[in-house]
Amino acid sequence: MAQSTPADEAISDLVAANRILANEGVLDGFGHVSVRHPSTPGVYFMSHSIAPALVTAADIVEHDFENNAVHAKDRDKKLYYERWIHGELYKARPEVNAVVHSHSPTVVPFASTKAPLRPLLHNASFLGFGAPVFEIRSVMRHSDLMISSASLAKAMVAAMGSASVVLLRGHGNVVVGPTIPITVFRAYYTEINARQQLNAIALGPHDVVYMDAGECETTDKIMQSVAGRPWQLWKAKALGKSPGG
Amino acid sequence: MAQSTPADEAISDLVAANRILANEGVLDGFGHVSVRHPSTPGVYFMSHSIAPALVTAADIVEHDFENNAVHAKDRDKKLYYERWIHGELYKARPEVNAVVHSHSPTVVPFASTKAPLRPLLHNASFLGFGAPVFEIRSVMRHSDLMISSASLAKAMVAAMGSASVVLLRGHGNVVVGPTIPITVFRAYYTEINARQQLNAIALGPHDVVYMDAGECETTDKIMQSVAGRPWQLWKAKALGKSPGG
Amino acid sequence: MAQSTPADEAISDLVAANRILANEGVLDGFGHVSVRHPSTPGVYFMSHSIAPALVTAADIVEHDFENNAVHAKDRDKKLYYERWIHGELYKARPEVNAVVHSHSPTVVPFASTKAPLRPLLHNASFLGFGAPVFEIRSVMRHSDLMISSASLAKAMVAAMGSASVVLLRGHGNVVVGPTIPITVFRAYYTEINARQQLNAIALGPHDVVYMDAGECETTDKIMQSVAGRPWQLWKAKALGKSPGG
Amino acid sequence: MAQSTPADEAISDLVAANRILANEGVLDGFGHVSVRHPSTPGVYFMSHSIAPALVTAADIVEHDFENNAVHAKDRDKKLYYERWIHGELYKARPEVNAVVHSHSPTVVPFASTKAPLRPLLHNASFLGFGAPVFEIRSVMRHSDLMISSASLAKAMVAAMGSASVVLLRGHGNVVVGPTIPITVFRAYYTEINARQQLNAIALGPHDVVYMDAGECETTDKIMQSVAGRPWQLWKAKALGKSPGG
Repeated sequence: MAQSTPADEAISDLVAANRILANEGVLDGFGHVSVRHPSTPGVYFMSHSIAPALVTAADIVEHDFENNAVHAKDRDKKLYYERWIHGELYKARPEVNAVVHSHSPTVVPFASTKAPLRPLLHNASFLGFGAPVFEIRSVMRHSDLMISSASLAKAMVAAMGSASVVLLRGHGNVVVGPTIPITVFRAYYTEINARQQLNAIALGPHDVVYMDAGECETTDKIMQSVAGRPWQLWKAKALGKSPGG
Repeated sequence: MAQSTPADEAISDLVAANRILANEGVLDGFGHVSVRHPSTPGVYFMSHSIAPALVTAADIVEHDFENNAVHAKDRDKKLYYERWIHGELYKARPEVNAVVHSHSPTVVPFASTKAPLRPLLHNASFLGFGAPVFEIRSVMRHSDLMISSASLAKAMVAAMGSASVVLLRGHGNVVVGPTIPITVFRAYYTEINARQQLNAIALGPHDVVYMDAGECETTDKIMQSVAGRPWQLWKAKALGKSPGG
Repeated sequence: MAQSTPADEAISDLVAANRILANEGVLDGFGHVSVRHPSTPGVYFMSHSIAPALVTAADIVEHDFENNAVHAKDRDKKLYYERWIHGELYKARPEVNAVVHSHSPTVVPFASTKAPLRPLLHNASFLGFGAPVFEIRSVMRHSDLMISSASLAKAMVAAMGSASVVLLRGHGNVVVGPTIPITVFRAYYTEINARQQLNAIALGPHDVVYMDAGECETTDKIMQSVAGRPWQLWKAKALGKSPGG
Repeated sequence: MAQSTPADEAISDLVAANRILANEGVLDGFGHVSVRHPSTPGVYFMSHSIAPALVTAADIVEHDFENNAVHAKDRDKKLYYERWIHGELYKARPEVNAVVHSHSPTVVPFASTKAPLRPLLHNASFLGFGAPVFEIRSVMRHSDLMISSASLAKAMVAAMGSASVVLLRGHGNVVVGPTIPITVFRAYYTEINARQQLNAIALGPHDVVYMDAGECETTDKIMQSVAGRPWQLWKAKALGKSPGG
């Protein structure tokens, strides 16, 4: 039997990431996850346009950074409408190897008010590096709110700066990281932090103690090192079910 | 084996719609879904009076627009107490081919306060065409709050105007659309938008950024075109279980 | 095979009621459900002291109205600590044939504040007949908050008056009705109404439109007549699982 | 077949405790549970560093009170990063025989605001003995918020005093008790009380009636005596699934 290559392993992790985030309620029928090709420059892996909970290895398509299918066999497949998010992030952010776009339910309210999403829970220390809101109206009127072109993706990337998370007004968010497990960890804890921050604000809007910059810097290093622990659990839970089950 | 007809397919989608909306928490033990007959004028399909989670193809009854069973074999069956909603909508709104009536849990609070349900999330752009509240007291005192007659249904239809959603005070809501998958999509995202709007108002009641009219118009077209994606997922999840399971 | 008697059927419904209310999140590891014996005066059926989700027909014990086991075979069994609730209600309220005591999670906050639980949703029209709070401190200091004696139960029954629901401060609630399905319906919709009322108050505390007395009277009659519909669904869901599953 | 020893039984209960608290949503991919060795002084049982939902008897490691593995066979295993919590508590509190550390989701907001967690629900009467917040900044700047040393654990134990619960700002909480079932009971009802208190504060922040000191003292005794009832239920639910399932 042939040994699995780094590309095989990336695809296997990418399938797990789709199924995990659907199973944990971060992704619903929409949203997508990608991973940079581990060896071929200018290429990333992502499913063609189906619900994340249904993704299997057979659905993964190699995309170039202009977000076209690399291989002839994939050129008839419908690709995600907002795939520009991925190509522009891989071009602009060499340290980024994985990208999650979701409609994470409790993050949307933060994207649609002036309340900034801030790090409350230590697992979400990456929020200390910023979680800006991209207001699409600043570049386009009467849009469908989606990142459906390279120019919209470039504007979103600019608004994001060096943050790990950007919120999309009226729509959702985008999370990046150095590996798939760390990016899934961040997407999950962005949602959890949003729920806990919403509750904390209800208890006393002027009283909430957030993590400070020093705490965030120290903590994010540790969290990156332990992201494999929930990853193993989430994988066992999500892949124990049939796709969509 | 005989080919399936458009009517067979409508019934199959109608069964799926009942089971999906129960599985996703939009319908509880009450509520109902109907679809206009694809070829026979003046007829629609709907289950007899059982919980939506239990509906199978054998439960579907052809109703005329006066909401009586068309066929003799169905005349002994108990029909839904509020079936007038369906007949009056099909008579008044030729562009409507499917109707969902639910007690969608987070929509009821919007039906019972002055807070208007407004489009916050792009998936719910159809709310931009209005989501008025029908106050049954405006036409009937000491009622049971239900749409249990043709005249109550006519008053509800009038209050609804050309909107895709009408809220029923102290009771629930009614959602319409051009196809079953689009109507299910709208019923689902009416609930999701209500949850997110409730959270956004908690974060800052005066700060919430809603979608504007131009955004809603652009976005609703796209959403109608992609409603098939979550439909496939929801169907896989709901029909993988036994009825009521 | 012997025909099933009314007493057999009452026991079968009582088992279903325990399992349904646990499955729907109204009962947790605590709480209990009883039914008046259909033919023997002064007797009611209730499980011995186990978690409701685990109750089977073999666990049901005949209790007299002093809350002792009627039969010698049951005298070694540990009975519920708060069984006085049941005996006193059957003595005082001849129209009551079933009783649910639960820690229904969203009702406790209403039991512990000045916010009265009021009928918002038509399914909860029975709340229009009152949902008073029994403050145990009015009769006993430094108590364990539980209804652990005949005298505490009598005080609770007095506070309840002719209502269908009484809230117990810091503890839970008690719901009564003429049949098991109607009482289960009321226990379930007490929880749902509490959630929706909490949300409505968050949207605008001074704006909430509650059902009026005339609406409640009309609606409760209808709801009693349709309580069998969700009962069938809930039973299918709850009894499809093994006890506690 | 050999009889099971008290140590075997402690391990069996410890596995159940991990799986129960994961299944009930108190523990996520992180957190840990330990039990004092029933006969060997200076030793406690706890899993090596894996997600609690995945713990089986084979994962349990004997730790000494300096939090090192007692047996050579376990010395290569990665141990929990915050195991100091356990060793310091067993040294300082002879009445404590079990410890749960969790990120219980609704407790974090109370750990990050000035709103004290107080006993609202009778099951949570142990909160009447205090639920102080440990602010790690009072002893260390720019920390990762975790109890990753003996000195941090000693500071946490000092802040906790004789309480059964201590909240960790931006992080989670620690719960102790005389037996595993009682400690699991307390960890579970700490979360439930937090949810109900949050809702009660939303209904009327100045109106909430908490349990008084006399009620807490009376009630905690009863609750300790009945903690075995939900324990049986939770065990049936959690152990009916495969680890992580």
